[in-house]
Amino acid sequence: MTLSHLFWGKADCVELARRYGTPLYVMDEAVIRARCAEIRADFLDKWRNTAACYASKAFLTTAMARIADQEGLGLDVASGGELHVARKAGFPPSRIELHGSAKSERELRAALEYGVGRIIVDGVMELELLSSLAAEMKKKIKKRAAILLRVAPGVTPHTHAHLVTGHAGSKFGLPPGDILRGAVRFALASESLDLLGFHFHVGSQIFEPASHAEAVARMAALLETLKTEQGFEARELNFGGGFGVGQLPESFDTGAPDAPNSQNNAAAEPHVPLRLFTDTMMETLTRECGIRHIPRPAVTIEPGRWVVAGAGITLYTIETIKKLEGVTYAGVDGGMPDNPRPSLYGAEYRAALAGKFDAALFFKRADAGAKVMVAGKCCETGDILIGSENLPGAERGDVLAVFNTGAYNFSMASNYNRLPRPAVVLVRDGRADVIAERQTEDDLLRGDSIPAHLQSPASCYNPPAAAGAGRGK
Amino acid sequence: MTLSHLFWGKADCVELARRYGTPLYVMDEAVIRARCAEIRADFLDKWRNTAACYASKAFLTTAMARIADQEGLGLDVASGGELHVARKAGFPPSRIELHGSAKSERELRAALEYGVGRIIVDGVMELELLSSLAAEMKKKIKKRAAILLRVAPGVTPHTHAHLVTGHAGSKFGLPPGDILRGAVRFALASESLDLLGFHFHVGSQIFEPASHAEAVARMAALLETLKTEQGFEARELNFGGGFGVGQLPESFDTGAPDAPNSQNNAAAEPHVPLRLFTDTMMETLTRECGIRHIPRPAVTIEPGRWVVAGAGITLYTIETIKKLEGVTYAGVDGGMPDNPRPSLYGAEYRAALAGKFDAALFFKRADAGAKVMVAGKCCETGDILIGSENLPGAERGDVLAVFNTGAYNFSMASNYNRLPRPAVVLVRDGRADVIAERQTEDDLLRGDSIPAHLQSPASCYNPPAAAGAGRGK
Repeated sequence: MTLSHLFWGKADCVELARRYGTPLYVMDEAVIRARCAEIRADFLDKWRNTAACYASKAFLTTAMARIADQEGLGLDVASGGELHVARKAGFPPSRIELHGSAKSERELRAALEYGVGRIIVDGVMELELLSSLAAEMKKKIKKRAAILLRVAPGVTPHTHAHLVTGHAGSKFGLPPGDILRGAVRFALASESLDLLGFHFHVGSQIFEPASHAEAVARMAALLETLKTEQGFEARELNFGGGFGVGQLPESFDTGAPDAPNSQNNAAAEPHVPLRLFTDTMMETLTRECGIRHIPRPAVTIEPGRWVVAGAGITLYTIETIKKLEGVTYAGVDGGMPDNPRPSLYGAEYRAALAGKFDAALFFKRADAGAKVMVAGKCCETGDILIGSENLPGAERGDVLAVFNTGAYNFSMASNYNRLPRPAVVLVRDGRADVIAERQTEDDLLRGDSIPAHLQSPASCYNPPAAAGAGRGK
Repeated sequence: MTLSHLFWGKADCVELARRYGTPLYVMDEAVIRARCAEIRADFLDKWRNTAACYASKAFLTTAMARIADQEGLGLDVASGGELHVARKAGFPPSRIELHGSAKSERELRAALEYGVGRIIVDGVMELELLSSLAAEMKKKIKKRAAILLRVAPGVTPHTHAHLVTGHAGSKFGLPPGDILRGAVRFALASESLDLLGFHFHVGSQIFEPASHAEAVARMAALLETLKTEQGFEARELNFGGGFGVGQLPESFDTGAPDAPNSQNNAAAEPHVPLRLFTDTMMETLTRECGIRHIPRPAVTIEPGRWVVAGAGITLYTIETIKKLEGVTYAGVDGGMPDNPRPSLYGAEYRAALAGKFDAALFFKRADAGAKVMVAGKCCETGDILIGSENLPGAERGDVLAVFNTGAYNFSMASNYNRLPRPAVVLVRDGRADVIAERQTEDDLLRGDSIPAHLQSPASCYNPPAAAGAGRGK
């Protein structure tokens, strides 16, 4: 058994935990950039007339927006709040697209004012509202608002029910039928809107491309229908995202100078290549458009989780070990508030002790003993981060690294049990920068106050003398 | 059909939405105080030697802590963050009890320093740590640390799997067996600890008292065993909470001056009376202690949800209505970030239009048509607040009131999709006070920064000219 420290972005995780405290989100900038490079090589450079917008709801800070900008990606924002972050980061408006199934007038106005490149319109009522807002603001914005209509293509991929989005009856988009036909007619007639095409998104955490390809084929049929019926030739198609990620990190670094990563990386899990999805979708689209004699529209994809999940780990401190009959718990200093995904989706994670890292053991999960259940800190039974993990030698004070937490952890964080949100540290080549500071307990009380009529602390009830904890002594 | 406005705490909900914006948490102080009065009348005054600690994880602001104090309740805090709020509110330390399955050394020290009345010890390792910390701080704190040991009594109530806590193998507490025996022996031998007794909590959202009573009986047997074996006579027993709440408000107010509430309240749903649980438990305890010839210990209960759930409503604005075949969606301006319970537990809520309130229809749910699915704002399929509700005449701009959101909504709120947390308004007799301000989009960027090496906005990638959204134009 060879124990070493776990490194992330060439930074010693034990040292990161000591310096920045735990729980701590750690994002490896190199992994994020490697994913972006793969998007360019295998999609943008491979297929003409394509674009990629990072789905920022997966993980968004101003630094992340900047990285996406530098890497040549656009930014998919799902709310006025995400748009606000993009603006603060100075993200070029023309490469921003606004999503949302219940956009407010305020959000639509903000998007028009900032001049976002695309607004993905989710329904008929929003379409009408946007048309009138864009008309009203025409003098200011000086052009028609470029839109895509979101379509629910009616395919159901294999994933968690809460992650399916493109099925018929979804809250998202419009089913391809009379309602959509009417929306297209309305958009084409509007003098303030520029209908470029359509958007779809079949769902999230999908590992095989069949449902994506099926959706593409349905969209091609829809394009043909709309061309025949209304003479509308779509210039753009947005494939959405949903490209799955696994539980294991793609590569390890144990800080050994002589043989960096070799042994470990051989055992690590490669990420799902983007081209598994994009090649299938682009080939399907090209073929279907050819058959139907319609020009192949420009294509945008929206990878989110796929870009950032594997870049992130979360470091915790083990606060307690509890050995019961049949189960040993390791209780850590975070959990559901910093990672609600196990509670929400039954999401599974893997973990290792950052100061006692045994790469060989980590991958022999099935064989090894010493199974531990990693329990979150919350007073909540569902707050179990990991049902079973090999953590031999785990002790109070050990730093635990949970892998593949780069997506939908920071962005979904709550303050349940009044736990402050962890900091986010961006690491690269052994250097670390805090890109989102840890909240303090006082931060959580900003704007909290006791109104005047409650200022008297006097109790209205004087309990009889008693031994209970609820009684003053 | 008689349409009126919905009032809450005698305040017009449409007016509240206009003045404070939406989404908005509204808490009726009178309902909270009525529940506290019921705790006094039906438990504290009825049974000698009893106490009640409000389980603050359900909903905690400094104003709420003050109300609990004024009402003569203790405060159950589940973390250092909740203890921090209690301190800021000046809550009397002797009536505070600290919970937590993974307490940190820092939290234990803070609790000892503030002089909390009880620490509920969750495991052996924590017991040993607390013993040494209390010994180390003995000069400062000048007394032994009063503790209860948390026991998992091994009963499984009927509720959501994530809400069961008292089963064997739970992450909480110690099963009654050799490990617990050893813990009692250790605590009794410790010169820095004062073992008063035991705590248990069977689970949450429980509607019939059988599992609570069964747990009490098991605890009585445990007390007898420990008296026989170790001569330890427990002075205190903490029954925990778990008392269920329904989906319907207990009473309505439509602002009509002549016949206040009459018609509506007749149809409203009474809350589950506390005595349904406490009488059964106290009778069981008294009987079992009598049979076993052990003195009946003092008893503490920890109602949380039961105190606040019914006091709270959430006001939303309907941003869009989407009519599809077979389903009509009302998309509101909040959802999963302010109320994750539908996603987490499949929790069901009821709602009504605050400006077009039809009390009669509201209760004839089964008969009426015009079913609407209330969809949250998040780009997330699981963000459905209510699967089906009668909302005839619902339009964009309408204020929607969701009932019984007083517990585990504000406290579990996240900023997913970068949505700022709503404000909390405390209402009473038509007056409203903001007790927690709405976050701003800038609040969410506190501590967010772009490190020096990312300051250059220049893209490293110059995409070929293309029509995609990800491309600059």
